[in-house]
Amino acid sequence: MPPPPTAALSSSSSLCLFPFSSYSSPKKTQLGFCPSFPFTRLTNVTPTRRLMTCSAVSIEKETLISHRPHSFLRETDGLDDGSVRSRFQRMIMEVQDSVCGALETVDGAGKFKEDSWTRPGGGGGISRVLQDGDVFEKAGVNISVVYGVMPPEAYRAAKANVTDQKPGPVPFFAAGISSVLHPKNPFAPTLHFNYRYFETDAPKDAPGAPRQWWFGGGTDLTPSYIFEEDVKHFHSIQKKACDKFDPSFYPRFKKWCDDYFYIKHRDERRGLGGIFFDDLNDNDQEMLLSFATECANSVVPAYVPIVEKRKNTPFTESHKAWQQLRRGRYIEFNLVYDRGTTFGLKTGGRIESILVSLPLTARWEYDHKPEEGSEEWKLLDACMNPKEWI
Amino acid sequence: MPPPPTAALSSSSSLCLFPFSSYSSPKKTQLGFCPSFPFTRLTNVTPTRRLMTCSAVSIEKETLISHRPHSFLRETDGLDDGSVRSRFQRMIMEVQDSVCGALETVDGAGKFKEDSWTRPGGGGGISRVLQDGDVFEKAGVNISVVYGVMPPEAYRAAKANVTDQKPGPVPFFAAGISSVLHPKNPFAPTLHFNYRYFETDAPKDAPGAPRQWWFGGGTDLTPSYIFEEDVKHFHSIQKKACDKFDPSFYPRFKKWCDDYFYIKHRDERRGLGGIFFDDLNDNDQEMLLSFATECANSVVPAYVPIVEKRKNTPFTESHKAWQQLRRGRYIEFNLVYDRGTTFGLKTGGRIESILVSLPLTARWEYDHKPEEGSEEWKLLDACMNPKEWI
Repeated sequence: MPPPPTAALSSSSSLCLFPFSSYSSPKKTQLGFCPSFPFTRLTNVTPTRRLMTCSAVSIEKETLISHRPHSFLRETDGLDDGSVRSRFQRMIMEVQDSVCGALETVDGAGKFKEDSWTRPGGGGGISRVLQDGDVFEKAGVNISVVYGVMPPEAYRAAKANVTDQKPGPVPFFAAGISSVLHPKNPFAPTLHFNYRYFETDAPKDAPGAPRQWWFGGGTDLTPSYIFEEDVKHFHSIQKKACDKFDPSFYPRFKKWCDDYFYIKHRDERRGLGGIFFDDLNDNDQEMLLSFATECANSVVPAYVPIVEKRKNTPFTESHKAWQQLRRGRYIEFNLVYDRGTTFGLKTGGRIESILVSLPLTARWEYDHKPEEGSEEWKLLDACMNPKEWI
Repeated sequence: MPPPPTAALSSSSSLCLFPFSSYSSPKKTQLGFCPSFPFTRLTNVTPTRRLMTCSAVSIEKETLISHRPHSFLRETDGLDDGSVRSRFQRMIMEVQDSVCGALETVDGAGKFKEDSWTRPGGGGGISRVLQDGDVFEKAGVNISVVYGVMPPEAYRAAKANVTDQKPGPVPFFAAGISSVLHPKNPFAPTLHFNYRYFETDAPKDAPGAPRQWWFGGGTDLTPSYIFEEDVKHFHSIQKKACDKFDPSFYPRFKKWCDDYFYIKHRDERRGLGGIFFDDLNDNDQEMLLSFATECANSVVPAYVPIVEKRKNTPFTESHKAWQQLRRGRYIEFNLVYDRGTTFGLKTGGRIESILVSLPLTARWEYDHKPEEGSEEWKLLDACMNPKEWI
């Protein structure tokens, strides 16, 4: 296996799938950089908006299309050739369908609204949003395929020992699915998941420098109240998916998740964790494709039974107010720390796709402190001091 | 007048008064840096919180006190000696009293809750918050006095021509008032104001390097709906305060305000502006003290008549929903761009004092676009294309 590049696809809790980030993973330090990157951008904005420019990132405009295509791959890639990129694309499209179908069934009333687009240079995406349903306040499930160019410095950092010849920019391919689900009932938890695959071409002008690839992703749970059986169920499904492939995966990715979703200014995690990984390429590529597929297919069995169980639980205004406060924390994490969101916002990503991760409503009270020993206090304690749930 | 240091007290729309920022003012580029800085930190937090550490900033713990003191100045400063620092402190204390008094009168029911603290090394602050009153959803009016140490690099950047001798860290003094007022009625606008004064000591080990000082601040209006007479009234009072001192002030500070409160990812200003200035020291110091005092004293006549006029205007759920969406924008600006907030959050400031600037409630809808020509559209248009109101 080639070593992973030091600049890697970002982890992201937003629905902006492919920023490059300066996030430091447990295993190595990554470089932050801005690729020449075809970010999602729609043009039907009112009132008249002046052209937004960003010196670091070139934004290729998208074209809204009326029907979702079968593939966003370039024709030169071969549309269904058994390559990892084509099989990963098929997987995320199938997961988008199955998750949205399961969520509509749980909701009973709400339907997903779909926006599809392509880009002239290849790639595109499908945003699906269900807003103000019976069960879900806001649920977004997006997939995206991106063709871009990686600055040579980023690639060279990984390959410094291979060649002294200066390579040119390295084309890359990235595809992913990303989702945030906010139910209305304060006893039904918020869920986030995101799975992505990244590949560079082998640089033509740097002999011996190989193609690079890696996987990233994770699934994590953010309740406002703890039902231990729910959290155990959720983590058990994550562990089961991990254990099928490597017994070290669950403990390693569980800790990575606790470390990543950290609201530093409050010394709290955003929620009760799950799994999270990035730059994964030190296992067999086929094995990791199967692993990512297993994780993505575990979303419905890990989450839907919890929502089914809690969606009609009676609650008071005070329960709802606490959920709203926790949603404020969710927003604080996403807007202040999440690399996907902050990079996407600062470089001209499609705002509505990025910020669909935010809940419909949220609340900030001055100096709110839950009473010691209360249910609210227990949640806060678990966010401050991550627990082993299974 | 000495030239201003290139690293300066930040502009801030938060209630974190004194971050050092990398904000670029229209007149010059500033350096970002982290001083050894006695940030506000309270200790009565539940559940048990582990010690937060920040390598760049030393946080001196505060002591909550039961009564507000007459002064936060160090005794060695002379408590009431006619110095600019003591007169500025007196001014912000008086303005805190007068603004809070006027707001309680407008509200009729809500009362401000006060938290005061001191720090062992000198300085302290008074936070006042009125939450869930009859008129105001959330209103914070904070004052703060800080003694800190500026890294020598920051001071030297301004004084490179004076001496080649390497100075040590430079002690500084800063004092300010900062406030954000969010009324309930969607026709009553949000107001933010912030006035601050900064002084360094003359560095003892760098002969010839002088004491530095500067003023910063501003007052700006963020309505959800435009009543042209209200916006004209507000800007007229700002212009009147400016014109008493220099006819160039209003146009210069009005533009600065439009440039600063800019939500780049939406290409929108947060609101309809007002005045904003920073690093102001190229006028007579006494004149600028009078100017800052005039601006701070203009808050009540500029704002209170507008709230009085709009606080009981009947409104629909749809008006309220639009106000909530605009509050989402307020949060986006404060958490993503405002230097006071972002620096405060990342360096361990008192979270509750910083985030009291956020509204009590806010809302994010996917892909919301107001109908062309509607009142909501007009507000959005004015936020995208700043107007001359007078």
